[in-house]
Amino acid sequence: MEKVTLGHGSGGRLTQNLIQTILSVFPEQNLTSNLEDCALIWGKIGVTIDSFTVSPRDFPGGDIGELAICGSANDLAVRGVLPRFIAMSVVAEEGLHMAELSRYMKSAARICEDLNIQLVAGDTKVVPKGHVEGLFITTCAVGEQITEESLGMDRLQPGDKIIASTSIGRHGAAIGASRFNLNPENLKSDCAPLWPALKPLLALKGLRCMRDCTRGGLGTVMCEWAEGRNIGITLVEKQIPIRIAVQSICDILGFDPLYLACEGCAAIAVAPDDADRALGLLRESSLCEEAAVIGTVTEDHAGMVALQTEIGGMRVVDMPVGEMLPRIC
Amino acid sequence: MEKVTLGHGSGGRLTQNLIQTILSVFPEQNLTSNLEDCALIWGKIGVTIDSFTVSPRDFPGGDIGELAICGSANDLAVRGVLPRFIAMSVVAEEGLHMAELSRYMKSAARICEDLNIQLVAGDTKVVPKGHVEGLFITTCAVGEQITEESLGMDRLQPGDKIIASTSIGRHGAAIGASRFNLNPENLKSDCAPLWPALKPLLALKGLRCMRDCTRGGLGTVMCEWAEGRNIGITLVEKQIPIRIAVQSICDILGFDPLYLACEGCAAIAVAPDDADRALGLLRESSLCEEAAVIGTVTEDHAGMVALQTEIGGMRVVDMPVGEMLPRIC
Repeated sequence: MEKVTLGHGSGGRLTQNLIQTILSVFPEQNLTSNLEDCALIWGKIGVTIDSFTVSPRDFPGGDIGELAICGSANDLAVRGVLPRFIAMSVVAEEGLHMAELSRYMKSAARICEDLNIQLVAGDTKVVPKGHVEGLFITTCAVGEQITEESLGMDRLQPGDKIIASTSIGRHGAAIGASRFNLNPENLKSDCAPLWPALKPLLALKGLRCMRDCTRGGLGTVMCEWAEGRNIGITLVEKQIPIRIAVQSICDILGFDPLYLACEGCAAIAVAPDDADRALGLLRESSLCEEAAVIGTVTEDHAGMVALQTEIGGMRVVDMPVGEMLPRIC
Repeated sequence: MEKVTLGHGSGGRLTQNLIQTILSVFPEQNLTSNLEDCALIWGKIGVTIDSFTVSPRDFPGGDIGELAICGSANDLAVRGVLPRFIAMSVVAEEGLHMAELSRYMKSAARICEDLNIQLVAGDTKVVPKGHVEGLFITTCAVGEQITEESLGMDRLQPGDKIIASTSIGRHGAAIGASRFNLNPENLKSDCAPLWPALKPLLALKGLRCMRDCTRGGLGTVMCEWAEGRNIGITLVEKQIPIRIAVQSICDILGFDPLYLACEGCAAIAVAPDDADRALGLLRESSLCEEAAVIGTVTEDHAGMVALQTEIGGMRVVDMPVGEMLPRIC
């Protein structure tokens, strides 16, 4: 009998299967047609939900409290939805130190304050020791769409340029390094709220769509776009910003940085004429100084992502099937 | 150093402390002033969030999937908010049977269909075996308030009648019985959506406020009202509907039915002139045939709940401090 495996939590192919299993039992009229990470209800209100099970709960560059607000708020931001409200549910293991919980809540509150987000509803559950490992937080973010368009992948067009808003894979590399007791000094998660950096882009006529590259990384987002729209995407390896520390962790642990989670990096598609302007706007944010054009949408190899490698070859970027690292977010 | 205990998950006094610990780190402008279970944002939109960790996941009268939709939808219903949308996040343990997950999702889908609720956003996480016991589901329900008033406890007035919409404690008793392998044939959880039964009440001018009696039971809701408004509430023991099977489980396991969780029972306060009309409307629903007036709001014993016992005495109903039964919902 089929069982849920860690691979089903990877964000890749098996996660799609798991989601399909869940959705298949809902009658069609009980589903919104567009199941992007952020749903739009009543036309202009964005809603998203995410559970955070990250381990360790404290990681270089952030903690589970900060991640729980950034993660949900970023799902709204990439749809042009101003994050306004958060509902938060905490499931804690008996024996968790209250001071530790308090610390995560302070991190969460700090991000809420930075973004002017109100905490409006909450729930707390405590389960017996051993029934949950430490602390899981679920957040539902609600906000108002301030763009005319909903910035879904349906807007992608051949010729569009793909931009990475910053260097990729830092969250996954930081978690992976912590997990294996490798702690390079200059490696931190990129966990951060995207709204301030992305907001100026919303005024660009040529802005097509955006997605935050979380679990599954940039590679998975590219595959979802290519498959979802049956278009081709060509990425240029040497243009993809990857910090040396991230590449080193990948070399040591055998990870592919394309699939490593980010928590403060968006993939952005823009009309070619607006690519330079978009880069300029992004780089005004201290979080996006590494922003770069990394590829192009194409009519070739429909449904597939191709990577032009540094040595001049081409390889297929497929959606990951298994799980490199569980409990990344 | 203070640790989170099971008592913090009871829904009673310690849960209030835990919530206070969390809220105390948020600056005031980042909190809604009214932290009832269901928040009202932009004036007329209701939002609530709840995590469900119930064990066993299948219980007499329902399962975790059904509970996850009813629980959140009921938090809206008691505020006069029509449940319209659900965001759902699933955290599954590696090794969970896919067929079991599918079954719970079918239960969830059935309730969504009954109530015409759309699933709009979701998340799935898989954590390694032993990091979560089975399956936790978090739901965030969103809907539109269809009443003029927001039906909060601020509307309570001395003289108001308190109604229980059905017999109390069935969910807690069913879970408790399962946990101890007592399975009386005629004992089932009351888990059910409240909206259809409560909707007709919304037209009553004398309707003051409503609350679904979940974790902590009727007793805890009464204490929250009395303390929250600094008014007295007198309950009449012999008028409180309790089924024999529930009372038997309480006698065997040493539970007080006043504090046992319900998942399809609302406490309702109405002006005295409207009490009979409210009872009549409730009893039109097959779920509320046992509805009864169980007490009165009074100017006496402000901040306290008194129970007029069957033998003619009076006793204080205090908020529970510890935890009778963890993972009830």
